[in-house]
Amino acid sequence: MNVRTPDPNPGWLSNEDLYEARRRLPMVYVEAIPVRLDPLGYVSEVGLLYTADETGNFRRTFVSGRVMYRETIRAALVRHMEKDLGPFAMPQLPASPVPFTVAEYFPSPSETGLTDDRQHAVALAYVIPVRGECSPRQDALELTWLTPQEALSAEVQGDLSGGRGNLIKQALAHMGWCE
Amino acid sequence: MNVRTPDPNPGWLSNEDLYEARRRLPMVYVEAIPVRLDPLGYVSEVGLLYTADETGNFRRTFVSGRVMYRETIRAALVRHMEKDLGPFAMPQLPASPVPFTVAEYFPSPSETGLTDDRQHAVALAYVIPVRGECSPRQDALELTWLTPQEALSAEVQGDLSGGRGNLIKQALAHMGWCE
Amino acid sequence: MNVRTPDPNPGWLSNEDLYEARRRLPMVYVEAIPVRLDPLGYVSEVGLLYTADETGNFRRTFVSGRVMYRETIRAALVRHMEKDLGPFAMPQLPASPVPFTVAEYFPSPSETGLTDDRQHAVALAYVIPVRGECSPRQDALELTWLTPQEALSAEVQGDLSGGRGNLIKQALAHMGWCE
Amino acid sequence: MNVRTPDPNPGWLSNEDLYEARRRLPMVYVEAIPVRLDPLGYVSEVGLLYTADETGNFRRTFVSGRVMYRETIRAALVRHMEKDLGPFAMPQLPASPVPFTVAEYFPSPSETGLTDDRQHAVALAYVIPVRGECSPRQDALELTWLTPQEALSAEVQGDLSGGRGNLIKQALAHMGWCE
Repeated sequence: MNVRTPDPNPGWLSNEDLYEARRRLPMVYVEAIPVRLDPLGYVSEVGLLYTADETGNFRRTFVSGRVMYRETIRAALVRHMEKDLGPFAMPQLPASPVPFTVAEYFPSPSETGLTDDRQHAVALAYVIPVRGECSPRQDALELTWLTPQEALSAEVQGDLSGGRGNLIKQALAHMGWCE
Repeated sequence: MNVRTPDPNPGWLSNEDLYEARRRLPMVYVEAIPVRLDPLGYVSEVGLLYTADETGNFRRTFVSGRVMYRETIRAALVRHMEKDLGPFAMPQLPASPVPFTVAEYFPSPSETGLTDDRQHAVALAYVIPVRGECSPRQDALELTWLTPQEALSAEVQGDLSGGRGNLIKQALAHMGWCE
Repeated sequence: MNVRTPDPNPGWLSNEDLYEARRRLPMVYVEAIPVRLDPLGYVSEVGLLYTADETGNFRRTFVSGRVMYRETIRAALVRHMEKDLGPFAMPQLPASPVPFTVAEYFPSPSETGLTDDRQHAVALAYVIPVRGECSPRQDALELTWLTPQEALSAEVQGDLSGGRGNLIKQALAHMGWCE
Repeated sequence: MNVRTPDPNPGWLSNEDLYEARRRLPMVYVEAIPVRLDPLGYVSEVGLLYTADETGNFRRTFVSGRVMYRETIRAALVRHMEKDLGPFAMPQLPASPVPFTVAEYFPSPSETGLTDDRQHAVALAYVIPVRGECSPRQDALELTWLTPQEALSAEVQGDLSGGRGNLIKQALAHMGWCE
């Protein structure tokens, strides 16, 4: 961010600058929980990514990513859904821009219960119905479809770090799901 | 409703009893505003029914109807969508049971601004994306797809009675639509 | 509902007629979960009524009641809050009419997981912050303020019948509460 | 953001760095529309700030401001409410973190219809009931309380720049307000 000469890529941020920005500014994120719905709209399955973190531990996580400069939230959602679920997932983007919750991740413990070592992130979290075939790309090892009961099980909750297990609970509650 | 002998159709209500109930109890309704969304989820069109009222005047109205005894809201939505849009509309029922608004119709003017001569109705109103082909059935003459601008025009607003024009505004606001 | 002569109380329903209507029509209900919020809006306590059911068993329950003919949802909420919490509770009615969930109670088990022996009830459920003093009236023995942790404990969940324990979870999820 | 030596104010951003960041990253904002509610929760008045922009033109605007590094959304809302309405406004922060809409401001025209010359801002917009006395501070000349009708008038809408007039419409629609 120390370039003052005309910049050919004004929205571009070097890795170093992004590292610094993450220590000074909240980052805007989107998070998506892909779901399979039955014809009446009841949730039948929740999609979680199975991945390895920096230390080689296996972790479950959400479709998630940064909103870029000049990118709309909807465009960011589509981009990250396609990145993580492949081009044939056929997601149904929501008609309303209102998320089911706003997840605030902090680099140290806070009242929100959500943590992210790297940054302060404000994530708009959406439930996204998908109708097509999902093929995880990039660094995700697998996309697993879980029943709501499985998603709330102690085992799966234990695989979700940074407080994300609670977000699954919030998403299912938002959908009116009953144990 | 004065039958005390075993009743072969316990959820059934004669026309006369329904007429009476409508003067004594609020009725539960669902209302659906079918929409066409672009791939990013932005609303491109709103579907309104074009029909004739009891006095022969042409009116625009919503997909709307009563929730029956022992029927879920979701089942009522599917039933009324199919009744009014035909079997190939491919509606995407919402993942969440929370309506975008609760519309309270009263037989005389009230603070809600919504009126219905026949009854006091509490209508749960949903925006329902549809992907398929719609063919109005029953008493509807036509299903018209309007752009948001057209739906907000004075002409169309004037064709919506009982305060329903305001519900269109609320639905578009809920979708974040900007003039 | 068998009166056809002009009726001095057109919105009035005899106990017998109400009994019959409850077997033929869904009833409109409101449910309120009173909460204490800290200055930032985080929930600190949830109010539950402690009462005895018909069989003399102690039960926890919500502020809840029927919406009368020609009564607005807001008026019903105020009436039932005052009936159950007394006149000095100082409830903050919500600016928006949208409930945090719609609870569908059926006389027999269904996909909603909520049951009510007496009727099919469609309940609009709201979280209502209260600032004043609460004194339970009528048939409630006690109003208990519980922390979110206590409200989610197995013991309290076991005292909530008809699936209402799940509604507490949904209310806390709606408020973004984290375990 | 070019400091690599240990930093005494790790969340602090110089004006120059903030200027640069605003050209590279979306900024997280909160926006609040203070409202007066009647005892039933119906909106009676909407509060708008009357201020002068850089060019000396009078403008109406919202309570609005940046979310700082490591600051929660709720803390940012309280801080900006107090900054703009004074310490005695007695705002009722919402029980739920879900905004009524997410407003995306871009430095050039986009599908969101909202613009901000300085930056790409993602603003979480809340309706905040206030019960106390409001005294605008800082650079605001005045806080005006308007009826919903006045807030929707062509004159007031014309005083709201960057597409903010539409946000008032969305806020009133969210509250179920009827013309």
